[in-house]
Amino acid sequence: MIKVGIVGATGYTGVELLRLLVAHPNVEIAAVTSRSEAGKLVSDYFPNLRGHLDLAFTDPSFDQLAHCDVVFYATPHGVAQSQVAELINRDVRVIDLSADFRIRDVELWEKWYNQPHGSPELVGHAVYGLPERNRDAIANAKLVACPGCYPTASQLALLPLIENGLVDTQNLIVNAASGVSGAGRQGKVANLFAEVADSFKAYGVAGHRHLPEIEQGLNDAQSDNDDAVKLTFVPHLLPMIRGIHATAYATLKDTSVDLQALFESRYENEPFVDVLPAGSCPETRTVKSTNICRLSVVRPQDRDTVVVMSVIDNLTKGASGQAVQNLNIMFGLPETQGLEQVALIP
Amino acid sequence: MIKVGIVGATGYTGVELLRLLVAHPNVEIAAVTSRSEAGKLVSDYFPNLRGHLDLAFTDPSFDQLAHCDVVFYATPHGVAQSQVAELINRDVRVIDLSADFRIRDVELWEKWYNQPHGSPELVGHAVYGLPERNRDAIANAKLVACPGCYPTASQLALLPLIENGLVDTQNLIVNAASGVSGAGRQGKVANLFAEVADSFKAYGVAGHRHLPEIEQGLNDAQSDNDDAVKLTFVPHLLPMIRGIHATAYATLKDTSVDLQALFESRYENEPFVDVLPAGSCPETRTVKSTNICRLSVVRPQDRDTVVVMSVIDNLTKGASGQAVQNLNIMFGLPETQGLEQVALIP
Amino acid sequence: MIKVGIVGATGYTGVELLRLLVAHPNVEIAAVTSRSEAGKLVSDYFPNLRGHLDLAFTDPSFDQLAHCDVVFYATPHGVAQSQVAELINRDVRVIDLSADFRIRDVELWEKWYNQPHGSPELVGHAVYGLPERNRDAIANAKLVACPGCYPTASQLALLPLIENGLVDTQNLIVNAASGVSGAGRQGKVANLFAEVADSFKAYGVAGHRHLPEIEQGLNDAQSDNDDAVKLTFVPHLLPMIRGIHATAYATLKDTSVDLQALFESRYENEPFVDVLPAGSCPETRTVKSTNICRLSVVRPQDRDTVVVMSVIDNLTKGASGQAVQNLNIMFGLPETQGLEQVALIP
Amino acid sequence: MIKVGIVGATGYTGVELLRLLVAHPNVEIAAVTSRSEAGKLVSDYFPNLRGHLDLAFTDPSFDQLAHCDVVFYATPHGVAQSQVAELINRDVRVIDLSADFRIRDVELWEKWYNQPHGSPELVGHAVYGLPERNRDAIANAKLVACPGCYPTASQLALLPLIENGLVDTQNLIVNAASGVSGAGRQGKVANLFAEVADSFKAYGVAGHRHLPEIEQGLNDAQSDNDDAVKLTFVPHLLPMIRGIHATAYATLKDTSVDLQALFESRYENEPFVDVLPAGSCPETRTVKSTNICRLSVVRPQDRDTVVVMSVIDNLTKGASGQAVQNLNIMFGLPETQGLEQVALIP
Repeated sequence: MIKVGIVGATGYTGVELLRLLVAHPNVEIAAVTSRSEAGKLVSDYFPNLRGHLDLAFTDPSFDQLAHCDVVFYATPHGVAQSQVAELINRDVRVIDLSADFRIRDVELWEKWYNQPHGSPELVGHAVYGLPERNRDAIANAKLVACPGCYPTASQLALLPLIENGLVDTQNLIVNAASGVSGAGRQGKVANLFAEVADSFKAYGVAGHRHLPEIEQGLNDAQSDNDDAVKLTFVPHLLPMIRGIHATAYATLKDTSVDLQALFESRYENEPFVDVLPAGSCPETRTVKSTNICRLSVVRPQDRDTVVVMSVIDNLTKGASGQAVQNLNIMFGLPETQGLEQVALIP
Repeated sequence: MIKVGIVGATGYTGVELLRLLVAHPNVEIAAVTSRSEAGKLVSDYFPNLRGHLDLAFTDPSFDQLAHCDVVFYATPHGVAQSQVAELINRDVRVIDLSADFRIRDVELWEKWYNQPHGSPELVGHAVYGLPERNRDAIANAKLVACPGCYPTASQLALLPLIENGLVDTQNLIVNAASGVSGAGRQGKVANLFAEVADSFKAYGVAGHRHLPEIEQGLNDAQSDNDDAVKLTFVPHLLPMIRGIHATAYATLKDTSVDLQALFESRYENEPFVDVLPAGSCPETRTVKSTNICRLSVVRPQDRDTVVVMSVIDNLTKGASGQAVQNLNIMFGLPETQGLEQVALIP
Repeated sequence: MIKVGIVGATGYTGVELLRLLVAHPNVEIAAVTSRSEAGKLVSDYFPNLRGHLDLAFTDPSFDQLAHCDVVFYATPHGVAQSQVAELINRDVRVIDLSADFRIRDVELWEKWYNQPHGSPELVGHAVYGLPERNRDAIANAKLVACPGCYPTASQLALLPLIENGLVDTQNLIVNAASGVSGAGRQGKVANLFAEVADSFKAYGVAGHRHLPEIEQGLNDAQSDNDDAVKLTFVPHLLPMIRGIHATAYATLKDTSVDLQALFESRYENEPFVDVLPAGSCPETRTVKSTNICRLSVVRPQDRDTVVVMSVIDNLTKGASGQAVQNLNIMFGLPETQGLEQVALIP
Repeated sequence: MIKVGIVGATGYTGVELLRLLVAHPNVEIAAVTSRSEAGKLVSDYFPNLRGHLDLAFTDPSFDQLAHCDVVFYATPHGVAQSQVAELINRDVRVIDLSADFRIRDVELWEKWYNQPHGSPELVGHAVYGLPERNRDAIANAKLVACPGCYPTASQLALLPLIENGLVDTQNLIVNAASGVSGAGRQGKVANLFAEVADSFKAYGVAGHRHLPEIEQGLNDAQSDNDDAVKLTFVPHLLPMIRGIHATAYATLKDTSVDLQALFESRYENEPFVDVLPAGSCPETRTVKSTNICRLSVVRPQDRDTVVVMSVIDNLTKGASGQAVQNLNIMFGLPETQGLEQVALIP
């Protein structure tokens, strides 16, 4: 059994990790830390876990974490970068769900996150945990930086086009919408039920922190001598708890390509990417609670704009599910282990 | 592997059965019938099943069903009663999710369902599939009548009080609320999103078909020489997809009883009934997608009215999950097999 | 024009008052106070008021309020009781939407609100602002204590029965459900969208602060020599923003009374109470944004339990609309002035 | 008083018209027709109208409608085109909320609506009822074709850019999302609460009927010798009842223009278009139940893509409110008469 620790388990990615890990056949949950809830039974705090987990939160302690095989950080940005070096030195592998190690350019990170980086020397050792791009590197990584939710949906939508140089990368658009759980579990007026239920709005239009991450991922996917991609990214807030829908727009250089075949071929061996039949549109409900990304591609009116629709559960494939997928890869397990949930309909 | 057939799989209890059975380790889905969708891939119809089920709907045919070990009826009332006799004669066991065999008094059934019963001779052979009452009979049953959703939540709330003769049974109240999926998958204006989202109302106040079923169950639980129970049952429609919350009120004959201990003791060996610690209130979200019923009991202001709160997922413990629980019992499997889902938070 | 001030206008009852008062033909909004938002345009804070109100929040100042004809307190409990004496001395009339002056028994108030009362000498001068009971006293009041939301829905449901001595008052039940806006506009985790959307639960079962208020109102309505009423009150939290639904249960002493006629007659001259035709159930959506209470009464299975269903908008008839109704009465205006909104369907 | 008739009042645009017209000071509702509900009180059918309208549905009859000053068609496409010629001959003015007369090119209409047009000779006489473009023509029109909901939100977003030739019109994108009420009040499985609540998806990606209408409106706004605009239009379905949010993307020919000033200036005299301060994002809730369109314009990362966000209530500014605005213009009333509702927050 792989001994895992979870730092910051009282947030939404934390409890989602717990949901997945209590049912994972190869995992033993050894430590669940929370400064504020130390001593309290996890299942008293999250009653969906009653009967599934008999463990109390503990104060974060290096000693306890150092006995784990792998530690997940489900913390706000800034926490992991101040703690993981020591764990890695002790050969504990780290899967970070926060933004701390996602961006390789430390200056760029510091600009968007508006604070100095706490362990810049580690950034180069982190592997960006998008298995559909970096599976091999993940397998051997000491430190995996799990992608953000929007970046996961957006990159999976655009990669087949970018990797094959099929679209104008100076004029990409991702219009995305996320459920409210993406905003985290802090008690903010802006995320009260009475504020966001029954409404829809864009936010972060002037610049969302996931923009440089998406652009980095797309740049990595194109050939080296291309100009850096330019993406317009507009996120919106949905009156739902979970789910991300990204609608990506790009201008085709060549309209003769069979887009459906291209997408099917790109993802045919990917266990968690499902290209829908031509003519379908993916619904977020079909991926809720699962690690799956569903995609559709279409070229409306046979013009030169291609539209790709991409849906994920922001807390699963967009966070904790992808983290478990990375754990499976890192420890040589079948990649779908513990991740075969079926979404609810209705 | 147990070969199962599902009749009427295009409805909500049908797709919920499919969700549970595709992940059940001892089951092989042999036939999924639908007159209207015959020939279509089930996973094209319900895309949450993509990758989990590679089977097309077929026209209902006796021959195909007769080769199953057990057939589920997930049909509107009236269908199972016209078909199951022949299957039972062929030693195919039947688990009926409809109301056809729930009420032992055929006249009472005909009054509430407003039609003649199609196989009154079978009614006496049916076992009412509430495992918490009838586990042994279910194990040997040829025909199991799965309880309705409200009756499941209501009986589990009141049984400990009734079985022990602790309350006045002439004055019981169950105030219940259900998600909209309980109304089924017919295209009715009354169940459109734009009609029921953002509103709340009672319905069926003058008399809901689940009333005689609940009263029958409670009568069975009290001693024979007591007067028939009198229940006021008021259901309400919640702007949610899934979930039932029942709030039961009864007048205690004796206020000295330790209600918390009574409930904990009654259900301590029940794998799917979870009595919450004193002072808690159950939330429907903690049982969504699971087969669990969570209960709380309280005596407000130390007066003589006891209040029991009971939550289930109407499509799981209130229908298809309980049907699978009954299958496990009928075929000698561990009762929780295939039913260990963890609810989502958030 | 009546000059009005609003203290505490950044909360939900505050913005609802503003919505109603900007359209009220006899009112001039003279002061809108908020310590935290002083200097900010109200319509920048609440963009639904853009084009309707050109006023900034000001720091609460006695001088400014003292020039008003009437001041509304839309503050948490504890605030009005520390401020209103001075205003009343200056002949400014006060309409308090908080709980400060609702309960005549100061000790009872202090017990339920768990703090000493700040101006007990004023409590006896306050008029309980339920127009359907106290219209004449309201007309001449200096200080009106607007009823709570649950108490409004509950009393209007039960008054016709209690006033006429038709039911056993030792065994009353109100099972109620409220939209989340009733919990106010503080940034609490418990009221986040991701916590309460898609779930339903009871709360405050052991004792909610509205219980003594409802019991006081019902006691006032029965004859003096009756025993104090005993009410079991169980509130629930609905995944909706606005709306209260109360389902009241009582045991009839005499089942021969024509309940429909009784209710219609009791409320026939009430502009804001609408008794639905027999056989209907009220929907919260039909009163959303309006000052109307809709009622239905039924006696299921012709037994001796009467069920009354009552719906209001918790922020309108349950708070700010009723406050404006009281203003109309206090200033001799038509009672429906500014309160003739039509609810949305759909 | 203006005598109005409403044909097809049992749908969502019909009941929305009724909500607005019962409160309109210059209007008398003379006829409300419905074949299926003839004889029934309108307020029994739509209980939000209890106390506001004392009229029964009648069978549609030419004689009754011919005595009106103006008749609204709130019918599916195909109905108005078969009836209005006769009314217009009798000098009854017609405001059609359906798609029948929106598109001037009859062949184009027949292609997208897949049926022959019933009165092509009238198409040229119809005025497209977008007051922000056609106010003068509307004033004198016999027949007004009210714009669709998406076209209203989309054109108001893009007009300032197109009218001034500031963007590349060969590459426009409108990514829009609508509440479910836009799908109408037919009892279809696809629009059941249990199907669309808690999910989000695109639809009609290959070609939505509002596309040619939007393109026509944008073509009208550019100079005659420009190429016809090419728009990619992707609508999505929101789990809300009301509200449209359009996010429009265009490539600027010149990035030096002051976009905020341009939009403010274009709409400064428009009573129902509100350009938000720079840095804001419009929320659909702030326009719900109102006739207002709120807009924000932004140029992310100072690149050459401009993003315009536009929100309306699809049933008000997107249908019935705009129809009443047109009535006000046609009959020389203040344009905001009866249309000054304040949206709810929360």
